Amino acid sequence: MSENEKHPVVRVEYPEWVDGVVEWDRTYATDAERMRLAISISRENVERESGGPFGAAIFESVSGRLIAVGMNSVVRLNNCTLHGEMVAFMMAQQKIGSFSLNGPNLPVHELHTSCEPCAMCLGATLWSGVQRVVYGAAREDASLLNFDEGPVFPESYEYLEKRGIEIVRNVLRDEARAVLELYRQKSGKIYNA
Amino acid sequence: MSENEKHPVVRVEYPEWVDGVVEWDRTYATDAERMRLAISISRENVERESGGPFGAAIFESVSGRLIAVGMNSVVRLNNCTLHGEMVAFMMAQQKIGSFSLNGPNLPVHELHTSCEPCAMCLGATLWSGVQRVVYGAAREDASLLNFDEGPVFPESYEYLEKRGIEIVRNVLRDEARAVLELYRQKSGKIYNA
Repeated sequence: MSENEKHPVVRVEYPEWVDGVVEWDRTYATDAERMRLAISISRENVERESGGPFGAAIFESVSGRLIAVGMNSVVRLNNCTLHGEMVAFMMAQQKIGSFSLNGPNLPVHELHTSCEPCAMCLGATLWSGVQRVVYGAAREDASLLNFDEGPVFPESYEYLEKRGIEIVRNVLRDEARAVLELYRQKSGKIYNA
Repeated sequence: MSENEKHPVVRVEYPEWVDGVVEWDRTYATDAERMRLAISISRENVERESGGPFGAAIFESVSGRLIAVGMNSVVRLNNCTLHGEMVAFMMAQQKIGSFSLNGPNLPVHELHTSCEPCAMCLGATLWSGVQRVVYGAAREDASLLNFDEGPVFPESYEYLEKRGIEIVRNVLRDEARAVLELYRQKSGKIYNA
């Protein structure tokens, strides 16, 4: 079924601008450098009007090698599941050819996301195989724009932590929040509001 | 970027067997008929060895028209996000050309899934626009196979219900559970265990 006209085929790819904002071959040594990339992607997504104000990236924890990025693509691709984190998970797994980023022959991977993950993305984090999550802006920052994060509770984070996933909060929060504010100023579309 | 060799492209499509098990043009009048389709898909996914024992379908609530189906495609497509419900949401939205199944010019849609949704799928349910969720087997049935449902709490369901989403539990639970048992007998791969 390489080309199936009868049924829908969902195709997820980066927007054209991705290579203008992402330096694929450099090393991202610190949390600040990694988060700054996620925030740059969120900002570019707003400025290009290609989606919501959310960006993400997946790195090898030790080497700092960049594996994949993600940007909110809900409106661009007519797909409610394509939050920035989800696009990053999908692209990373497609790239390495595995449904988990955690395996005996794989380095440890981590997710950096410009804003606290919603319920869907937090669930996917558990399945993704990343072993560390770093976020920028907080749930409350997104709520000011009427973005709903869904059923996420303190127990949700405890659930992930019990399975060995480290959570790091509010890294470069002000920079991340500034993109949310930019989006508000541009009167961006708040889907699922 | 119609063909981009530099970056991964994620392509989500049905397995070839879908038309053998899904009657696309008939009307599914009752919850039992709708659930039986979701269970048939879960069973076929196991028998064809194309994925985990989970199937889903999205219907127009009033007309009973079938919009899309989904089957667990995590291993088949190397993508941790592709649970049955997620594939169903993506396919339905691709088909109608909207990131939400809830809109002023759209009929009410509902999800039927052969097993209680995990945390990711429950979050996505909120964003999908379906206004009713019907599930077959329960979380405890899946747990017996070491499938983890993630951070889902009673409050998670309350969150959805407060936003107007009706939850209907354990429809044809025994039939749905039988597919989980079939999977166990075939010693299926329990990913993310």
